[in-house]
Amino acid sequence: MDVVTFGETMIRLAAPGFQRLEQVTSLTVTVGGAELNVAAGVARLGLKSAWVSRLPDNPLGRMARNKANEFGVDTSHIVWTSEDRMGLYFVEYGAAPRASSVLYDREGSAISRIRPGEVKWDEVLRGARLFHTTGITPALSDSAAAVVAEAMEAAKRQGCLVSYDLNYRAKLWSAQKARQVQEPLMAMVDILSTTEEDTEKVFGVKADSYVDVARRLIDRFGFKVVTITLRETPSVWRNTWTAIAVDREGNVYDDKVYDIEIVDRVGGGDAYTAGFLYGYLTQGVAAGVQYGNAFSALKQTSWGDFNWATRAEVEALIRGSGLRIAR
Amino acid sequence: MDVVTFGETMIRLAAPGFQRLEQVTSLTVTVGGAELNVAAGVARLGLKSAWVSRLPDNPLGRMARNKANEFGVDTSHIVWTSEDRMGLYFVEYGAAPRASSVLYDREGSAISRIRPGEVKWDEVLRGARLFHTTGITPALSDSAAAVVAEAMEAAKRQGCLVSYDLNYRAKLWSAQKARQVQEPLMAMVDILSTTEEDTEKVFGVKADSYVDVARRLIDRFGFKVVTITLRETPSVWRNTWTAIAVDREGNVYDDKVYDIEIVDRVGGGDAYTAGFLYGYLTQGVAAGVQYGNAFSALKQTSWGDFNWATRAEVEALIRGSGLRIAR
Amino acid sequence: MDVVTFGETMIRLAAPGFQRLEQVTSLTVTVGGAELNVAAGVARLGLKSAWVSRLPDNPLGRMARNKANEFGVDTSHIVWTSEDRMGLYFVEYGAAPRASSVLYDREGSAISRIRPGEVKWDEVLRGARLFHTTGITPALSDSAAAVVAEAMEAAKRQGCLVSYDLNYRAKLWSAQKARQVQEPLMAMVDILSTTEEDTEKVFGVKADSYVDVARRLIDRFGFKVVTITLRETPSVWRNTWTAIAVDREGNVYDDKVYDIEIVDRVGGGDAYTAGFLYGYLTQGVAAGVQYGNAFSALKQTSWGDFNWATRAEVEALIRGSGLRIAR
Amino acid sequence: MDVVTFGETMIRLAAPGFQRLEQVTSLTVTVGGAELNVAAGVARLGLKSAWVSRLPDNPLGRMARNKANEFGVDTSHIVWTSEDRMGLYFVEYGAAPRASSVLYDREGSAISRIRPGEVKWDEVLRGARLFHTTGITPALSDSAAAVVAEAMEAAKRQGCLVSYDLNYRAKLWSAQKARQVQEPLMAMVDILSTTEEDTEKVFGVKADSYVDVARRLIDRFGFKVVTITLRETPSVWRNTWTAIAVDREGNVYDDKVYDIEIVDRVGGGDAYTAGFLYGYLTQGVAAGVQYGNAFSALKQTSWGDFNWATRAEVEALIRGSGLRIAR
Amino acid sequence: MDVVTFGETMIRLAAPGFQRLEQVTSLTVTVGGAELNVAAGVARLGLKSAWVSRLPDNPLGRMARNKANEFGVDTSHIVWTSEDRMGLYFVEYGAAPRASSVLYDREGSAISRIRPGEVKWDEVLRGARLFHTTGITPALSDSAAAVVAEAMEAAKRQGCLVSYDLNYRAKLWSAQKARQVQEPLMAMVDILSTTEEDTEKVFGVKADSYVDVARRLIDRFGFKVVTITLRETPSVWRNTWTAIAVDREGNVYDDKVYDIEIVDRVGGGDAYTAGFLYGYLTQGVAAGVQYGNAFSALKQTSWGDFNWATRAEVEALIRGSGLRIAR
Amino acid sequence: MDVVTFGETMIRLAAPGFQRLEQVTSLTVTVGGAELNVAAGVARLGLKSAWVSRLPDNPLGRMARNKANEFGVDTSHIVWTSEDRMGLYFVEYGAAPRASSVLYDREGSAISRIRPGEVKWDEVLRGARLFHTTGITPALSDSAAAVVAEAMEAAKRQGCLVSYDLNYRAKLWSAQKARQVQEPLMAMVDILSTTEEDTEKVFGVKADSYVDVARRLIDRFGFKVVTITLRETPSVWRNTWTAIAVDREGNVYDDKVYDIEIVDRVGGGDAYTAGFLYGYLTQGVAAGVQYGNAFSALKQTSWGDFNWATRAEVEALIRGSGLRIAR
Repeated sequence: MDVVTFGETMIRLAAPGFQRLEQVTSLTVTVGGAELNVAAGVARLGLKSAWVSRLPDNPLGRMARNKANEFGVDTSHIVWTSEDRMGLYFVEYGAAPRASSVLYDREGSAISRIRPGEVKWDEVLRGARLFHTTGITPALSDSAAAVVAEAMEAAKRQGCLVSYDLNYRAKLWSAQKARQVQEPLMAMVDILSTTEEDTEKVFGVKADSYVDVARRLIDRFGFKVVTITLRETPSVWRNTWTAIAVDREGNVYDDKVYDIEIVDRVGGGDAYTAGFLYGYLTQGVAAGVQYGNAFSALKQTSWGDFNWATRAEVEALIRGSGLRIAR
Repeated sequence: MDVVTFGETMIRLAAPGFQRLEQVTSLTVTVGGAELNVAAGVARLGLKSAWVSRLPDNPLGRMARNKANEFGVDTSHIVWTSEDRMGLYFVEYGAAPRASSVLYDREGSAISRIRPGEVKWDEVLRGARLFHTTGITPALSDSAAAVVAEAMEAAKRQGCLVSYDLNYRAKLWSAQKARQVQEPLMAMVDILSTTEEDTEKVFGVKADSYVDVARRLIDRFGFKVVTITLRETPSVWRNTWTAIAVDREGNVYDDKVYDIEIVDRVGGGDAYTAGFLYGYLTQGVAAGVQYGNAFSALKQTSWGDFNWATRAEVEALIRGSGLRIAR
Repeated sequence: MDVVTFGETMIRLAAPGFQRLEQVTSLTVTVGGAELNVAAGVARLGLKSAWVSRLPDNPLGRMARNKANEFGVDTSHIVWTSEDRMGLYFVEYGAAPRASSVLYDREGSAISRIRPGEVKWDEVLRGARLFHTTGITPALSDSAAAVVAEAMEAAKRQGCLVSYDLNYRAKLWSAQKARQVQEPLMAMVDILSTTEEDTEKVFGVKADSYVDVARRLIDRFGFKVVTITLRETPSVWRNTWTAIAVDREGNVYDDKVYDIEIVDRVGGGDAYTAGFLYGYLTQGVAAGVQYGNAFSALKQTSWGDFNWATRAEVEALIRGSGLRIAR
Repeated sequence: MDVVTFGETMIRLAAPGFQRLEQVTSLTVTVGGAELNVAAGVARLGLKSAWVSRLPDNPLGRMARNKANEFGVDTSHIVWTSEDRMGLYFVEYGAAPRASSVLYDREGSAISRIRPGEVKWDEVLRGARLFHTTGITPALSDSAAAVVAEAMEAAKRQGCLVSYDLNYRAKLWSAQKARQVQEPLMAMVDILSTTEEDTEKVFGVKADSYVDVARRLIDRFGFKVVTITLRETPSVWRNTWTAIAVDREGNVYDDKVYDIEIVDRVGGGDAYTAGFLYGYLTQGVAAGVQYGNAFSALKQTSWGDFNWATRAEVEALIRGSGLRIAR
Repeated sequence: MDVVTFGETMIRLAAPGFQRLEQVTSLTVTVGGAELNVAAGVARLGLKSAWVSRLPDNPLGRMARNKANEFGVDTSHIVWTSEDRMGLYFVEYGAAPRASSVLYDREGSAISRIRPGEVKWDEVLRGARLFHTTGITPALSDSAAAVVAEAMEAAKRQGCLVSYDLNYRAKLWSAQKARQVQEPLMAMVDILSTTEEDTEKVFGVKADSYVDVARRLIDRFGFKVVTITLRETPSVWRNTWTAIAVDREGNVYDDKVYDIEIVDRVGGGDAYTAGFLYGYLTQGVAAGVQYGNAFSALKQTSWGDFNWATRAEVEALIRGSGLRIAR
Repeated sequence: MDVVTFGETMIRLAAPGFQRLEQVTSLTVTVGGAELNVAAGVARLGLKSAWVSRLPDNPLGRMARNKANEFGVDTSHIVWTSEDRMGLYFVEYGAAPRASSVLYDREGSAISRIRPGEVKWDEVLRGARLFHTTGITPALSDSAAAVVAEAMEAAKRQGCLVSYDLNYRAKLWSAQKARQVQEPLMAMVDILSTTEEDTEKVFGVKADSYVDVARRLIDRFGFKVVTITLRETPSVWRNTWTAIAVDREGNVYDDKVYDIEIVDRVGGGDAYTAGFLYGYLTQGVAAGVQYGNAFSALKQTSWGDFNWATRAEVEALIRGSGLRIAR
């Protein structure tokens, strides 16, 4: 196993064709969640991955498992329960000056009720190269936060790298609580993915440049590498996207800026992380930034949280494929 | 106001075209819930009705309100909250030998957290002719049960008739709890709608004939009238449907049996109740059974909890309209 | 040219999936109209056909022309106008005990404003074997009725057979007016297609058996052949269908009864006429009844006014193809 | 009642996904019409509104009523008829260099046949704050124009403000007739919404600036306030939008320019009017322009004539919400 | 690994809603093929399974792999090629008197060009309990037939049971060639699934009863068990279904007859085989027939080649679950 | 007959809404192919056209014929076969930085197996003004190339102009083979449509300007006129488009540049050719470029290979219609 991720996946119900949720008569259905998105992404790029979660044993829970399977993600460590519900979220696609929006309905989800001891982390992580989770998981509940700590400790015991996407969700917890819960975890993290906004909100880290933000985070928490994604939104349908990374040795890695016609940006950050982890684990930080950027840019051009782009497409984009029709 | 109903409405997400939930990529969306179905039904037939509930102030809550408005149901007494969620349910349409099925996801819904005092029942019911709720509402939570009692007491004070559909839901409470909570309520009920199965499960009332079941219920609780619906299911796509009523004076009312090609049977019982209440309030018990039967038969031939049949169509069916194409 | 037909075609807007019109958020779109249905049907079976009408030169009018073209029907004699509108009709599919229904919106259509002299009938019909129209066309307006008479007279001059489907539409005219207008036309008709109901309503012809009805019609109007279709509707989704014909010599032709799972019965009568005319023109009355019956039965199993069945399928059905899957 | 509007609503049949009408096999269905759009808009923003019209008592007429109800618009003053038809319109969405287009099919609609005396305007308008109609209504027929005059006179008697959107439709009448019919009406109008093009075409009012156009209109007709909307169309999918207002005292009100990614611009002007009336009635002209602009900008980002934006969204946009995804 | 299957899977393009293929404007897409259907079915019921095939490395080939993964089927032994195409098939759903039909477009598919040696069968089958293929695979090409023989020989070496579904496809080969190629294979087969028609066509085995057919097959080829499925087709939408099995010891196993409302019968035979293999491997022949029958009956009530029924649903049906809605 | 074209048409299966092919659950269906697109285009603009091809006699082959008929294209010279298959292609719509793409599945198509002698070219072309084919047809197979030569020779005999679109497809043949096969054909060509890229790849013709490329081609092959289309792709959703032509006399014709919001660019080049041929045959080269440009720009704003724009729309665009909504 190359990568093991842990976190919530929800049923994603999206309003078709720029409709507002109040007016829909149908919703498109798939699944999505930050950590499964990453597991699916690295599997798509060629690594072996597993996703750990807690799911209700009903059609919606099975749908989440099936979709993970469809991408070749190992689902054998999922904890099944006959209680509790599947979290859901509703997506509305925007058009300037109306931003896209997401309505979460995740209260009482099966994973928010996970408890330490339910997952045999040492068994799960034995032989794995990297464990990944995000700031959403400990925000779900105190017991979920305890399981995150438990998993990271096992990762350290098993010699896995630990990757963490800060992913601050203000609807789930306050910045203060986010800081208090996550600060102790940071000591176990090797790779941090984040945005400038989130690090300022959660850790109060602020600087004149992205590179300085990354450096201060490394100074404070001792990360091996920090990678920061940068999105500009001149309009809803047209964004620019790039990323940088800084390593503990102070090297700075950047990449070209992609001009993206946005089809669906939800999951764009997770696609970056997946691409980054693939590049990092196979070739190093510079490749991480390139694969992450290109994989994310491609993700944002099609529908759903998961990224159907192939590694060949990613590599063609890195080399500079054009916009003429491919026949 | 002729009829005021009180209860939960959920967002109804249905799998299209006999798909199983696990395989869907889209879901059709509308709303439904026993008490709103009744309010919408009687409005459709020409009475003035209102529906009382507690809804989250988000697009899903507003959708429920909008759909009630669309049928001309007064929604001005809804209690709005910025907390809590909207209940949902998922429908799978069956084909023999696979029955249709409903998956509820209603835990933590706004209405389950309603508390006595939130609705000004005396104001709501002043001048109303009839108050209607079902056995689902007290099953949602203890506080919801307390609000049902509160509403019925106000109804009695305001001189409203009280109508109750027993509607036992085993997923929400045990038969024992259902009996314990509802027995005290029955004293305030004038009109009971039910099925043979439910009365046996909840009240242990059993007899050789439907008429005897109704009589025993009247004897025990003193109802003005009991009406029982009768469905036979030779297959999933073809059911028969009829109903009877018995009044306190011992009169028995029955009606022809409809042979129904089932498009969507969810809401069929509520359509019966709506038709019954319309007939009862305008013309008496015999008309109640006829309108209820015909309105329900028509409901089951189209999609959704609500019934789009017109009163003219109902009356034509009672008179015996044929199956030739109407041009 | 084998067959020339004349009449209205409308845009057909159908409610999907047993929805009621009031609840739809989309409508499926195609075109249909009795006389074009016949022209398309005989073309499908291998004859050369043309359809004459009057259409507005807008996207809806062009759509009607295009769909006729798609079936290989000659549309070069259509009269185009920059005034007037396209007629429309809305279809609701039923389920027992609710019949299917059609809502017409054809007032002010371009063809209802056609005037004698706009079509050069002698040119159109020169060399044609048969002219066909139905009782709908003269019902559209007095001027349309005058054009029907004009066309029939030209048909007689050109030596064409004249075929007429009585097709009584109570929404368009009274039985009395229908009789008054059509009685003079009948003298020019060679082949009459009808149902027992329509001949009773329009001509007051009634008898103990279908054969006697046909005989009385022949006696009264001197038709070469009368063909009567017979539908039974035990339910909306399951009908039986057959037909008989009687010729002037008194020969009676009948055929097996088809048990049909109804997908869309609108256009079923026109499919019969098309099959009948094909069989009659190529092989005689007996073949007419067989082709008409089988072609109509197949039409009723798929969606739309037009019949996509092939001649090979029709002939296989006449020979008795089974219900096992065709691989 | 805050606002009463009067005018036609049609069934709106839109070609999905940039298809041309000639090629569609389905059409999306909703309703729309200038005056109902305004009534729905102000109701959405929190005012009480009613819409008056004349509708056929068939599923299409009821659909219009239902959709008005869905937005909380009072429909109790609609005049129902068993004659006449529902007007329809067909929408094609464009892409540069092809503009979007609308094909109207409204001849013979029920409202075009309304006659003075059918609506009891004094009863309808008693206690209302404002009556609104547009230049489309008197264009429908002479009798509809007479009813507009009748309504405005009642409005004056009842002390209602009169609001009028000039909305010139060249397909319905000539500029000359539009001037002749509307000039007498203008004396009763307090608030005029219009565009530079329309005032030039109808009243021959032309000036170097929008403000001067507004001033000349006030000088000529004595309006309390004139508001003019300004759209630039660099492409079909990207427009800019703003508006100004000038009051009788000569004050000029303007607002920021919105850069809009156009999903559906039909109804954009009506959304402006709704927002303007809401702002004007609650806070004055300056707020009118701001609410109108923002409400219209949001409307143009989603599908349908009606505007599903909430007042909270409008106010956030006025304050300057960004384009980042709302979670 | 419990079960390994080998064969073609195609992209399945189905006409929606009883449309004829010539008229569609969209097709629903999934994948299906006899041997993958079986692998997916046994995985659904709880066994571990793998599917071996040869696929083009393009989106269609990957879609087949993904869908197998989605059901938890191991796809690691698939042979990928940059040449050749994916087979396709088109489905039309029938209605009496029109049978459903399938149009194959499988010429030149990647698997038809598989050659001996491309799959390492001994590695694939090491430790597996059962190998399954059908009469379709050797019919694809001579080289595919050679690979079937190669696989069976490896199965024998590895101690796997060999299961074979005769599945005669007249479009792929003549009965004579089918016999010539398959007769030598039969010696290696332990479990034969078939129908009366197929055994008569291919092997000329005919008898007065299904049981006698099975016995003669066992006598001739020495199978451990023969199982025969029995479908009656009173109409297209309503079939009956059952099966029997006979073992080498002469025991006869039968089961109840299911009355099925047919949604999609394609894949029904494969579902039977999957259920039979599950029951046989876990509990014996009697359970095989019961699981096979129930699993197949449920499959035919939903859309697609794969069966989304759960083992719990199968077992409930065996016990006799009713047709009342499941809430 | 004005224009006769010859070539392959395929079933076009497109992924809806920017989905990737691997993820679709439905595909939209129509037909397309360079030469039929041209025949349909010139028919749309008012010329008489015919399309010659070879099709399998199955629903897919008939669909291609039907769609040609729908546009009024004569299909009476198609060669039908009971062997062979229909070619297919799959379309994915892109968004920057992901280009749109086309996956062809045309191996073994009926037309690739056409042989000289199957079409009676002298009969087909007698009286025709122009014969058109493209570089795709000879690329399909050696026998198809032989039929192209046969057709051109007949065209010369019959006094038809010969038009040729170079349309190089690298997936079908090498540049070297393309040159070798097509060079002899060029001597018979009067009108060449091409792009700078294709002429460089196939004929090695390269120059500093488009005009010089055209001149060199004329010098080398003696064409009457060469026309070159020019697309710029700043993004996937926004392209610019124009064209030039040069005649044998050295005159240069250019036109304005269209800024296009791209809905579907597949078929854009064929629409240009159709417009060019229409303008050229009716008014000359200058009109050819204008009609070609405008017809192509409009085609790219709607879905499908065929162009539903009317001649009136084309002429309005040439005159400079704006982007305001057309009511």
